[in-house]
Amino acid sequence: MTDRFLNALKGTNTSGRPPVWLMRQAGRYMPEYRVIRSRHSFLEMCHRPELIAEITMLPLKAFQMDAAILFSDILLIPEALEVGLHFEEKLGPVIARPIKNRAHVEALPKIDVRESLGFVAEGIKYFKIDDSKTPLIGFCGGPFTLASYMIEGGSSKDLRKTKEIMLRDPDTLHMLLDLLANYSIDYLNMQIDAGVDALQIFDSWAIFLGHPQFREFSLAYLDKIMKGIKKDKPVIIFCRGSSVFAPDLAELNPQGISLDWNADLSRVRSQIPPGIALQGNLDPDILLASKHVLQREVYRMLASRRGDSAYIFNLGHGITPEVPYENVRALVETVQDFT
Amino acid sequence: MTDRFLNALKGTNTSGRPPVWLMRQAGRYMPEYRVIRSRHSFLEMCHRPELIAEITMLPLKAFQMDAAILFSDILLIPEALEVGLHFEEKLGPVIARPIKNRAHVEALPKIDVRESLGFVAEGIKYFKIDDSKTPLIGFCGGPFTLASYMIEGGSSKDLRKTKEIMLRDPDTLHMLLDLLANYSIDYLNMQIDAGVDALQIFDSWAIFLGHPQFREFSLAYLDKIMKGIKKDKPVIIFCRGSSVFAPDLAELNPQGISLDWNADLSRVRSQIPPGIALQGNLDPDILLASKHVLQREVYRMLASRRGDSAYIFNLGHGITPEVPYENVRALVETVQDFT
Repeated sequence: MTDRFLNALKGTNTSGRPPVWLMRQAGRYMPEYRVIRSRHSFLEMCHRPELIAEITMLPLKAFQMDAAILFSDILLIPEALEVGLHFEEKLGPVIARPIKNRAHVEALPKIDVRESLGFVAEGIKYFKIDDSKTPLIGFCGGPFTLASYMIEGGSSKDLRKTKEIMLRDPDTLHMLLDLLANYSIDYLNMQIDAGVDALQIFDSWAIFLGHPQFREFSLAYLDKIMKGIKKDKPVIIFCRGSSVFAPDLAELNPQGISLDWNADLSRVRSQIPPGIALQGNLDPDILLASKHVLQREVYRMLASRRGDSAYIFNLGHGITPEVPYENVRALVETVQDFT
Repeated sequence: MTDRFLNALKGTNTSGRPPVWLMRQAGRYMPEYRVIRSRHSFLEMCHRPELIAEITMLPLKAFQMDAAILFSDILLIPEALEVGLHFEEKLGPVIARPIKNRAHVEALPKIDVRESLGFVAEGIKYFKIDDSKTPLIGFCGGPFTLASYMIEGGSSKDLRKTKEIMLRDPDTLHMLLDLLANYSIDYLNMQIDAGVDALQIFDSWAIFLGHPQFREFSLAYLDKIMKGIKKDKPVIIFCRGSSVFAPDLAELNPQGISLDWNADLSRVRSQIPPGIALQGNLDPDILLASKHVLQREVYRMLASRRGDSAYIFNLGHGITPEVPYENVRALVETVQDFT
């Protein structure tokens, strides 16, 4: 097992440089990925254990990342709840039967996550057979983000429908969030049992919320998950908005907080307990710059956290499809060459 | 002159409750506004001094706000630079001739702001004749936000074109930002001479930037404006992202910082010098709630800043058109009744 990543989550990475991995590191910017994508639907790629393992491996083979992240999608729990998930070119995820009211929440089927999503556990085991050295990060979506997708019926620029339920019928939203938190606990425990070495929870859409609503509708359910899962694996929490919400997230005592790209890393460092690792937070669009500018920005970030034994290099959000492959290589090599 | 608002900007509002005004308080949610809008194009409303004064007055008549904000648009400087601004239903602002390269920046006409935008000064004077008591806030857009509109050709979900110029040809972006900052200085000085009592700078799109880029491409030009304008009127700075960037904005020594809705007001209060007033920061979507929930949320925010003599109640962004008129009344009355 390569220790740099897991050590950073314990605050004990004294290897001379931070570990590096990138959110959505197995994605459309990779020609190898696009070849697989041309043969399979996105959901098929998420459903078939051998493809999960193969795709998870792609960025490790290409760039020697310090951690792998399970190839999957946060929307597999909603899919298992039979809301009619599919992916449309350009639109992204679409949910055919969105949640509009309490009756819709009550009508959701009761599922056994280990049965419905057992293929994810299989994918983890396949990966671990192929690569027993690289730490593997399992993940799930935050309940608020999952609920938002289920209510909006897909992506949204304002979460207007979710906010209307939140403000007009908060009990229904709480019922949905509680149900999703419970399934997420089962889901993460299944991933731990299957062999992941760490976990990340993505509550990407928390940034739409004011501070009191963030605490009530996002943080409370992240807290429930943190308390419900087995304690033996480190957990990283990410939100869009984690730049602002980091002190709140720190209250949950995760091993790491992953910052969106607005934050000044050193400023956030001073706001949260030293025992919590920080991960982030390069603007993903910097990967569209020339190699020279990219290297300069990566170096600037590395220099600002020099000597920090609890820092993990990453982006502030996922890699976008337009990013040049060679720029990802340049980024990773700049981190690897840093001393 | 009602003193509550200006006193809060000096940190000396001991009247027992904070002042209240709302970003975009003269807007489409008002039937009176829609009547005027049905007779005039949006740009005509911005161009005609008597309409500027009349529309600026609408929310004062309706709700007794503690401050007026000039009815205008941040894009009048780009319009004066002849980029072909118009407004389209649903799309919002559209710029017919966007800036794509250095030659486009160099080809922008040299303008005299006091001449090109003299109608704004006239509108301010008309308002002051009608109402000499209510403090009037003048404003401009932050150079980064104006440049982004000019480059994107309108609104954008990712500022991709702006970021490409920022990363590939930063000198051109700096040239544009510098030019816009200079015109903004002239524009704000003109507004001061015409009679405004305070100023707000809206750098709404700063949230798209990573922290180093925020400092280089947004903050540096806000700083230039702060240093270039006459010193006798208080200035409030707003960004989407001000929750994160507040300590940076504080370096410019504005009299106030207006926070987007993610921030916990009390936490930000502890991060910035006590001499700087805070304004904000209710999620504008809370205005879509029932009157009861709205009042509860407004009260919660007021209670969190009880006794703060440097606090101004406001939203974290502008009022949206869908907001019920009576909810705006309920919000304002809740603040006015607070003790």
